[in-house]
Amino acid sequence: MSSYSPIGPVVGIVGAGQLARMSQPPAIALGVELRVLANNRDESAARVIVDTRVGDYRDLDDLRDFAKGCDVVTFDHEHVPTEHIRALAASGYSVRPGADALVHAQDKAVMRERLSAIDVPCPAWARVSSADDVARFAGEHGWPVVLKAVRGGYDGRGVWVCRTPEEVAEAFATGTELMAEAFVPFERELAVLVARSPHGQGVSYPVVETVQENGICVEVLAPAPDLDPEEAAQAQRIALKIAEELGVTGLLAVEMFKTADGLVVNELAMRPHNSGHWTIEGATTSQFEQHLRAVLDLPLGSPKMTAQVVVMANLLGGDEPDLFKRYEHVLAHDPGIKLHFYGKQVRPGRKIGHVTALGSNLDEVRARARHAVVYLTTGEYT
Amino acid sequence: MSSYSPIGPVVGIVGAGQLARMSQPPAIALGVELRVLANNRDESAARVIVDTRVGDYRDLDDLRDFAKGCDVVTFDHEHVPTEHIRALAASGYSVRPGADALVHAQDKAVMRERLSAIDVPCPAWARVSSADDVARFAGEHGWPVVLKAVRGGYDGRGVWVCRTPEEVAEAFATGTELMAEAFVPFERELAVLVARSPHGQGVSYPVVETVQENGICVEVLAPAPDLDPEEAAQAQRIALKIAEELGVTGLLAVEMFKTADGLVVNELAMRPHNSGHWTIEGATTSQFEQHLRAVLDLPLGSPKMTAQVVVMANLLGGDEPDLFKRYEHVLAHDPGIKLHFYGKQVRPGRKIGHVTALGSNLDEVRARARHAVVYLTTGEYT
Repeated sequence: MSSYSPIGPVVGIVGAGQLARMSQPPAIALGVELRVLANNRDESAARVIVDTRVGDYRDLDDLRDFAKGCDVVTFDHEHVPTEHIRALAASGYSVRPGADALVHAQDKAVMRERLSAIDVPCPAWARVSSADDVARFAGEHGWPVVLKAVRGGYDGRGVWVCRTPEEVAEAFATGTELMAEAFVPFERELAVLVARSPHGQGVSYPVVETVQENGICVEVLAPAPDLDPEEAAQAQRIALKIAEELGVTGLLAVEMFKTADGLVVNELAMRPHNSGHWTIEGATTSQFEQHLRAVLDLPLGSPKMTAQVVVMANLLGGDEPDLFKRYEHVLAHDPGIKLHFYGKQVRPGRKIGHVTALGSNLDEVRARARHAVVYLTTGEYT
Repeated sequence: MSSYSPIGPVVGIVGAGQLARMSQPPAIALGVELRVLANNRDESAARVIVDTRVGDYRDLDDLRDFAKGCDVVTFDHEHVPTEHIRALAASGYSVRPGADALVHAQDKAVMRERLSAIDVPCPAWARVSSADDVARFAGEHGWPVVLKAVRGGYDGRGVWVCRTPEEVAEAFATGTELMAEAFVPFERELAVLVARSPHGQGVSYPVVETVQENGICVEVLAPAPDLDPEEAAQAQRIALKIAEELGVTGLLAVEMFKTADGLVVNELAMRPHNSGHWTIEGATTSQFEQHLRAVLDLPLGSPKMTAQVVVMANLLGGDEPDLFKRYEHVLAHDPGIKLHFYGKQVRPGRKIGHVTALGSNLDEVRARARHAVVYLTTGEYT
C-alpha cells in the first residue's frame, strides 16, 4: 500500500481487469488517482495501479473498506451484487453508475422490461422457468429461441441459441435463471457508446460495426461502414435516450442488431466496452478518459474521430506464451500499428490484448489490423 | 513492493519525475513493466508505477540493487554519475543510452569538443577557469559572453548571460566548473527529436519551434511555423548524425538556434524531452513509446503528425493549490483540449503539467492552448 496523500480526486474501480488497466493512462494525464479492488496482485490492472487493494467484490465489508477515501466508486465489471451497491450509496459513498441504473446491465429481464416500457425496440422476450414456457414462447415466435442467463453472462457465455427441445433442456440443466428471446435475423451488429454525466451532459461516439465469432467480438469497424446517416443518428438517439431514462452516469454501450426492419437493441453495458477500445487512438477523447470525466462530473470530451477509418481487432491467446517474441515482425512491418497487451498470461482463446489501425481506406486498415493479430496469435504471415 | 512475476520485459528508469510518469501509459499499452528509482514515494512517477524502489541515484550499490532483474536501464534525468553507469555496464547490465553517449548530455564541454570534431555547427566556446579566461574569450568573440555550468544545469539554471566583468564574477562565485560560449543572436529556437535503436534504426520527428521565457520552455509549436523545408531537413540530418556519431540508444533531443547564418546547436538531451510532449496526442508514436521501443531494441514507430498543427504549452504553478477546481471551465470551454498534470504539489513557477491542442490553424490552436494554461495558472479568462 502507498503511504502518500493523493493530490487529485480518487476514483475507485471495483475489479482489476483490462478495463481498469486501460483507465490508468488517462488517469495519469488528468492527475486522477486510481484505486482498484483486485482478486490478487497479478491481475491486469493491479500490475499498473499503485493503490491496489485485494478483496472480494461480493463482500460488503471489503467494498466498504475499499470505498473509504474514494471520491467516487465505479466498476470494471457488472458482477457486484446490486444490494451492496445500494448499501454503499446509503452510507454516503458516491457510486457511479448507481444501482438503479446499473441493475439494467446486471439483470437482462429488468433491462427488457424497462426498455420495452420506454419504447426502445427490443426482440420479443419472456421470463421462462421451464421447457414448457420455452415451447409456448416458440409457438408464438418460432424457433430458434435464444435463451439467456438473466444474470452473469458475458463474451458469449450464458447464451444458448436453441433449435430443439434437447438444446433447451441443456440450458436449463445449468440451473441458471433464464429468459427467452426471439432470434433476430440480423444483417450485422452495431454498437453505440455514449457518456452521461451526473449533471446531465451527454455525448455519443460514432456508431461502429462489431464483428463476432463464436459469441466473442473479434473486430470493430469505426465508423460502421456504409451506414445510412439517418439510421446512424437514430442509433445514437436510442443510446442517449436509454442513458437519460435509466439515469446512467458514466459510459453506456448499447449493442444493436441491424435488421431489414430497422434497429433492435441487444445488450447494455455501463462501463468502458470492448466496442470502444478503438477510441484510445481513434477519438479525441478515449472511452476510458470519458468514463473518468463522467463519473467525476467533469465536462465531457470531444468524441470526434482522429482518422477517417479506425479498426480494432481483439488479440486472443495462441500457442506462443511469449508474445514479445512476435512484436518485432509486427512493429517493423507496420510502423503505425498500435499494440495493446493486457499483461495477462497467454492462454489459447483468452482475450489478452488488441491492436488498432488508423487510416483512410477501410480494406487497407482492416488488413493491417488483421495482419497484426494473426501474426501475434499464430506466427503466420497474411 | 510487488510480488508478482513480470510478463513483459522490465525497463528500469532511474529517476521518478514526470518523464518517467509519462512513460507509463505506453508501457501499459505495450505490456512493458516499468520500475523506477525514486527519492521517495510522493514523486510524480512513483504515484503511478507499482514497482517503485526508493534509493539514491548517486549511490552505486543502490543502482546495482535497482538494475537487478531489469532487462534494460534508462534515465529520467542526466544526473547519474558517469562512472556509475560504466560500472553497471561492466557488470553486464544493459544501460541505454550508454555512458559513452550519455556523457555528451552530462558534460557540456565534452559535448562541444565532440560536436566540433564531427563538424556540427556550434557557437564559439572555450573552457574557462578564471575571469581572465573569460575576458580573453570576450576579446575574441565580444560581449555578452554566455557562461554555463559544465555539469548539472537545467531549465535556465546554470546559465549566465554576462555583459560585464561583475556578472562574470557572480557566476564564478557559485564555485561551479564553467565554460564560455559566444552569445548567439538567434531569430528563434528550434528542437529536433530523433530516436535511434541499438541495431541502428533512426527516426526523426518534425522540427518544432520552442518558445522560452526566463530560460524555461513555455510553448512548443509543431511543426516549426514557416520553416524552409530544406532547413528543416538539414536540422533533422544534424540530429540524426549526432545520434549516429555519439552512438545514442533511445531518444536524442537537439536544441538549436535558428540564426541569420543558419543553424547552431545549443543543447542535447538523451531522454524524452519537454520539446516532445506534443507527440503524446500529436504523433502516431509518442516520444515516450518511442524511447521504450528504442531502448528495448524494438522497431521504431511512425513519427508522423496526427494533425496539421499541434501546440503544447507548459503549465507552471500559480496561486491556486487545487488545480482540479479549475478543470471545469477549461474542459467545458474546449472539449478537444488535452490536459496533463504531473501529480505534483502546486508551487508558484513549478512545472506541474502541460496542455496540448491539435488543429489546422496555428493562431487558433495556439490561442486554445494559451487559454487553458492561463486559466489554470491564474483563474483569468483570455
